[in-house]
Amino acid sequence: MLTYDLENRGGLPLYEYLYRCLRDDILSGAVAAGTRLPSKRALAEHLRISIITVEGAYQQLAAEGYVIARPRRGFYAAPVDHPPAAPALVEVPAEESSPRWRLDLKSGRVDSFPSAVWARLTRQALSEGGHLLPTPHQGLPALRRAIAGDLRDFKGMVVSPEQIVVGAGAEYLYLLLAQLLGREQVFALEDPGYPKIRQVYAKWGAVCRPIPLDGQGMALESLRASGAGVAHISPAHHYPTGIVMPIPRRQALLRWAEEADGWIIEDDYDSEFRFTGRPIPTLQSIDARGRVIYVNSFSQTISPSMRVGFMVLPPRLLERYRRELGFYASTVPALEQQVLGRFLDGGWYEQHLSRTRKKYRLRREAVLEAFAACPFTAGLTDRGAGLHFLLRLNTRSDDEALRRRAEGLGVRLGFLSEYAAVPDPAYAHTLVVNYAGLDVERLGETAALLSEVFF
Amino acid sequence: MLTYDLENRGGLPLYEYLYRCLRDDILSGAVAAGTRLPSKRALAEHLRISIITVEGAYQQLAAEGYVIARPRRGFYAAPVDHPPAAPALVEVPAEESSPRWRLDLKSGRVDSFPSAVWARLTRQALSEGGHLLPTPHQGLPALRRAIAGDLRDFKGMVVSPEQIVVGAGAEYLYLLLAQLLGREQVFALEDPGYPKIRQVYAKWGAVCRPIPLDGQGMALESLRASGAGVAHISPAHHYPTGIVMPIPRRQALLRWAEEADGWIIEDDYDSEFRFTGRPIPTLQSIDARGRVIYVNSFSQTISPSMRVGFMVLPPRLLERYRRELGFYASTVPALEQQVLGRFLDGGWYEQHLSRTRKKYRLRREAVLEAFAACPFTAGLTDRGAGLHFLLRLNTRSDDEALRRRAEGLGVRLGFLSEYAAVPDPAYAHTLVVNYAGLDVERLGETAALLSEVFF
Repeated sequence: MLTYDLENRGGLPLYEYLYRCLRDDILSGAVAAGTRLPSKRALAEHLRISIITVEGAYQQLAAEGYVIARPRRGFYAAPVDHPPAAPALVEVPAEESSPRWRLDLKSGRVDSFPSAVWARLTRQALSEGGHLLPTPHQGLPALRRAIAGDLRDFKGMVVSPEQIVVGAGAEYLYLLLAQLLGREQVFALEDPGYPKIRQVYAKWGAVCRPIPLDGQGMALESLRASGAGVAHISPAHHYPTGIVMPIPRRQALLRWAEEADGWIIEDDYDSEFRFTGRPIPTLQSIDARGRVIYVNSFSQTISPSMRVGFMVLPPRLLERYRRELGFYASTVPALEQQVLGRFLDGGWYEQHLSRTRKKYRLRREAVLEAFAACPFTAGLTDRGAGLHFLLRLNTRSDDEALRRRAEGLGVRLGFLSEYAAVPDPAYAHTLVVNYAGLDVERLGETAALLSEVFF
Repeated sequence: MLTYDLENRGGLPLYEYLYRCLRDDILSGAVAAGTRLPSKRALAEHLRISIITVEGAYQQLAAEGYVIARPRRGFYAAPVDHPPAAPALVEVPAEESSPRWRLDLKSGRVDSFPSAVWARLTRQALSEGGHLLPTPHQGLPALRRAIAGDLRDFKGMVVSPEQIVVGAGAEYLYLLLAQLLGREQVFALEDPGYPKIRQVYAKWGAVCRPIPLDGQGMALESLRASGAGVAHISPAHHYPTGIVMPIPRRQALLRWAEEADGWIIEDDYDSEFRFTGRPIPTLQSIDARGRVIYVNSFSQTISPSMRVGFMVLPPRLLERYRRELGFYASTVPALEQQVLGRFLDGGWYEQHLSRTRKKYRLRREAVLEAFAACPFTAGLTDRGAGLHFLLRLNTRSDDEALRRRAEGLGVRLGFLSEYAAVPDPAYAHTLVVNYAGLDVERLGETAALLSEVFF
């Protein structure tokens, strides 16, 4: 009969150790498939253990399929692979570790996370249990009401909370929109432009057409010629050119959407940072025909690590969204939705915005002044908005050579030419400066380091 | 010259009110396109206001494109649409409000959110600033290390944190996997099965083949015949049948993957709730060839409102994932990743699991006992695992008629037949009972209410 040394079992419970011994014998073939195991009573007596212990081991073996229990006949070893596929020691490719830059003009984001208020609101939300409420796929009603209120008070947008869909960041919303608008659509994208927009739509399998920009934004004739049914634009402050789309072009795009029976995705990224004058009315707010899908997020204004964005759907699309995509669960934790809703309702968000706006305005002025005086600067394009500007370089070197040279010195640069799908010599020798992460106290060093790169 | 009543401006700043007056006149056509506006000095004198006020209004008009500034010549009204497209008062379709059920056997989830510990860990994370760290697309390294540790200690899985991808819930991970494995793949899905899996892959445009189950899970011959390259299975506790896949079938599926050069998505949903014996080894842990993608989430174990899931990619897919999908930002807030990592590391998760397991075990026993005694019960399928079981009804009524009758009485039922892509009379008259949300104190009332439905 099966005999095992049950003394040296390394702290395992008796039934579990017995289970393992039997399992290993079945796997190794020592107990062949079809073999009847000893009865529980017989094995218990043989090993001088209780029947309950044997029972536990046999049941586990049966549950996992190593043995087959036949009523009133006993337990039989099941046919299994010998030897079992052992987990191989696999080589896992290591992640690219992100280098520590001495200077980073490409991402350059600072984080202005309002930790103290956030902690207080989180504690409140947890103690009141609001985070346990079921979360509809469009997001918590309280958060959507707060967002609609903020859009009304600070952007003059008349939006019902029912039109709002909350999601885990702008990219996730692009992915939802790709699914909503359909793969057969042609997407017109600003060129140059933010590469992730193209990446998401292209992954989805949609045809993406790069549309050149003139001084006012997406060029209309090219848009018309593209056959696109969807235009994804960022009129408030285009990345990376910084163009702010004037009213006539906004109106012309709305007319295009009506004529083409198309949709405009208004990506309102960066609109909160306008340093001169009032914010320009969004396309959504002057859209009478329900052609505009408004998208924004809290990544720039609170923190990129927050992962909360939202979109405002026109009524026609709303029904389609609910019918076709309503099965998706909300992607943002209920707790975070609660806290963000309170943050907006309590006025902390606007307070926070006003504070960061002031901070960035000062930083922007200092950086522009310092860079204007540098010999490597041929010109600055300052549109009075957003967290980046363009700097034309006083150089004839190739962008790629400069980028490599900079990397060697621990400096990360972003060039306008990198953002173009269709290359154009006009884009050369132009830096996209994301200034928000720069240290104003060290602008002298920064300028010196950049001079090393460019001369 | 342009003349406006600047007294009654309803609390607006002077420059803003003037800007609005001018804008409205341009939009209405009162100031025609191409008209030169008065010089700043002239208008200031005319209206008896400061030049700076006029300057502010003109700049805002220029920034928004209502006027065009010509250097040394002045400001000219731009050509715009008259009248402007006013935001229409739109009818927004109302959301379906979810009815309040007297009894809900279909979703029936309770929330066991550990609010007190969570609040404390959140406060700690916020005060230490760890949530401000940049979040790699695969998720925070600290959280991935904690997940790998938990998989090692409690599931015997040898996994490198580098293989783990954190995402906003299981559905989002399905969406990533669809993009990773490619649209040309045929996905084999368990039938009956969890409908969202099919919905996500189908939305993505992949071909989905329903594969019938035999007593051990996905039927192999049907899988082979389907031409599928991906099999999505839930071997730990299948929804809704409750089948626990035995070892020989697991091994056979691994062999299939090797032969078919395919992939297995092991959806380990519900595996934490096993009430008899030890958990069965995951396919991932016995997969020597790197064919298994392991997916799990914290929705069942902590809260459906948490929206955190993760997957473990085999090394070959990891490189492809980083190359093709690495552009996606992490979809889970850094703060929540920090807190969850601490929750796992500190042992609170296993403590929490052990507590909820105990709670559900008792609830399960009470519910099974109460329902077994009911005249409408023809049989119960109890597999000793998971948060649901099957109840065969002692009735000849049509499932759909029963569902409608139940709804009339405020009772929400889920039928096995609803989960099938290919109908089969064998599925009829069978309830899927999600018992975790039932109140043990009121099982008498629950049974009485159900009796009303069925007789």
